[in-house]
Order: sequence, then C-alpha cells, then structure tokens
Amino acid sequence: MSDILNSDQVDHLLTAHPGWTLSDDGLAVSATITFANFVEAWGFMTEIAIEAEKLNHHPEWSNVYNRVAITLTTHDANGLTQRDVALAGRISESLKRREK
Amino acid sequence: MSDILNSDQVDHLLTAHPGWTLSDDGLAVSATITFANFVEAWGFMTEIAIEAEKLNHHPEWSNVYNRVAITLTTHDANGLTQRDVALAGRISESLKRREK
Amino acid sequence: MSDILNSDQVDHLLTAHPGWTLSDDGLAVSATITFANFVEAWGFMTEIAIEAEKLNHHPEWSNVYNRVAITLTTHDANGLTQRDVALAGRISESLKRREK
Amino acid sequence: MSDILNSDQVDHLLTAHPGWTLSDDGLAVSATITFANFVEAWGFMTEIAIEAEKLNHHPEWSNVYNRVAITLTTHDANGLTQRDVALAGRISESLKRREK
Repeated sequence: MSDILNSDQVDHLLTAHPGWTLSDDGLAVSATITFANFVEAWGFMTEIAIEAEKLNHHPEWSNVYNRVAITLTTHDANGLTQRDVALAGRISESLKRREK
Repeated sequence: MSDILNSDQVDHLLTAHPGWTLSDDGLAVSATITFANFVEAWGFMTEIAIEAEKLNHHPEWSNVYNRVAITLTTHDANGLTQRDVALAGRISESLKRREK
Repeated sequence: MSDILNSDQVDHLLTAHPGWTLSDDGLAVSATITFANFVEAWGFMTEIAIEAEKLNHHPEWSNVYNRVAITLTTHDANGLTQRDVALAGRISESLKRREK
Repeated sequence: MSDILNSDQVDHLLTAHPGWTLSDDGLAVSATITFANFVEAWGFMTEIAIEAEKLNHHPEWSNVYNRVAITLTTHDANGLTQRDVALAGRISESLKRREK
C-alpha cells in the first residue's frame, strides 16, 4: 500500500521535476512536453510505457502530434504517492537523455 | 488538399467502422477501445502510431491503462476528410487482426 | 537464482509452445514468426519488449520486415530456465490475441 | 528505381555517419549501437521503426538488451542506394537527439 505524500513530499516532487504542476485539488500532478516531431514524441512515450508497466503504475496521458500531456495520480490511494514520484523520475530520466 | 466529407461519406465512415460516433458539431469522430491490458493497448497504439506517421495524419488520443480514446479530425480542413477515413481504416484493420 | 530446466521441462516447453525448436547444444530455443507486414511485426515486438523488461529477461531477436526471429536462453545459468518459460508464455499469449 | 551508389557516394555515407562500416562485398553497411539500457534501446528502435515504414525501406536488425546491430542494404538493387542513405540519416538524427 502506498501512503499519500505529505505537503513536504509534494513540494519535493515539484522541485525535483520542473515543469510539473499540482492540480487544484492537490490529488495529481501534470506536465505537457513538446518534442521535435511525432516520431520523437512516440519514442519517448514508448520508453515511459515500458517503465510504467514495470512499475505497475500507469499514467493518464494524451498525445497530439509532437505534444504529450501527462497526469500522474494514484487512484487506489486517491492522491499522490511514492508511485507517482517513481514514475515522474523515469520520465525525467528519459527527457534528460534527450537533451531537454 | 482534402475536401470535407459530405454527409453520405460521413454516414459511410460511421457504418464501415462501428464504434465510432460523430461529434455534435460534425467536425470529428471518436471511439474508445478497451483491450485486455496495458500491454495490448500499447501494442495497438504503436501500430497506429506508425500508420499515422506514414499517412502524415495523426490522431488526438489518450490512454489510461487498457483504454484508448481516439478522435479523428482534419485541422487544416476544419472537419472530416478522406485522411480521417484512411486512418479509421488502419485502426479497424489493426483491431480486426486482434479478434476484436 | 534460476535452475536449469530438466529434459521433461524442456519437452513441456516445446510441447506447450509449438513453433519453437531446441538448439543443437540444448542451451536455447528459437522461433521465427511471420506477420502480415512490418507494422504488425512491430506491434508484436513492442508488446514483447514491455513483457521482457517487466520479467527482467530479454530475448535475442532480429527482424527483417515482417519476420521476427527470437532466441531464448538464460545467460546467467548457461541454459534454459523458468525465465525462458515465462517469456515464451508471454510471446504465445500475444500471438494468440492476434489469431495466429 | 534506386541506382546503386558509386564509390564516392559510399565514401560520403561512411564519412557522414561515423560508426558504420562497409561489408566485405560492398553491398551493405552495418553499425552496432549501445544504449544505457534496454528501455532506451527500445525507444530508439521504435523511432527508427516508424521512419523505416515511412521510407518504405526497412533495416535488418537485431537486439540483445542494450545493444542494437543494424545492417542497411537495398535488396531490390542488390547493393547500397539512396534509400540506405536516407535511413542512415534518420538513424543519426535520432542518435543525435540522444546525446550520443
């Protein structure tokens, strides 16, 4: 079971991963990422798809051409947990490898 | 340049590809498809990603675990065109290969 | 740690998953799978890529257009183990969903 | 129809894309690329899969964990053509985006 992050932990998540914003109700974080083109966006999404399945924690995400919008939340816990921190970490690593 | 589909062509699109519905304003069609799990959903999305790039016509789509919601429209034409018919066809073929 | 499969277990693997053959030295199994086209081959490979990373057990595989050749072995154990059985199982499930 | 590259064009291909080597018979070029891990290797391969299908020119390639070996040749022409130059270019672009 995952515990809900306390406000310090949420602050740490937002500081460690610039570009993410907290939802008004504090239950989720979201980011929108723009790539050079659709192919690069899809390469990124595929990497995150593998990581998500491995973590057994999947994003809510959408894509239009070179833009990817991602929302992270833990439905079972009705809020943000360490599982979201873990997935945000994998996303940042994939982006870092891409010079973003 | 793509011409806007007339109402007969839109009817044909909806008849040929069950599961798609026309938006209220008539400018787009949408479908939501459910797979056995995330892995199968991602396999499907990857096939469609390749087809979309090849057609140079990309969907607006979102994914949560085993569900994929797809909207097709042609922004340049401000409505539905043969490009949407083509992409809907590729989607149906991929689903047919999957016994859906 | 994974134990090497005994000959009954290898027989079971080969019986449960038709299309796989044992290497001459008995250390690996291989299969070659043909799809309708490259797009379907890639959809399949992507599903197996996700499963492989989740199992932390990766295939040796090659692709040319619609053909995928896969070899399974457990390098750490210098032979076939239950990890190969697990990955062969995921491959068969993905193929079964595709009416093959 | 694609013409076979002359030796100047082959030299240019090899100079423009370091890491590729010409086969002994001069009919193909090959490269082996190593990534941080399987996930990054698969992200790269997915990008190239999309480009290959778009170019309607597919590589012969294999993967083991974080390594990807790629051979380019044009079977129809029995040698190297501009189609191989085009695909090598897409591969280099994808690698460049990844700081390699």
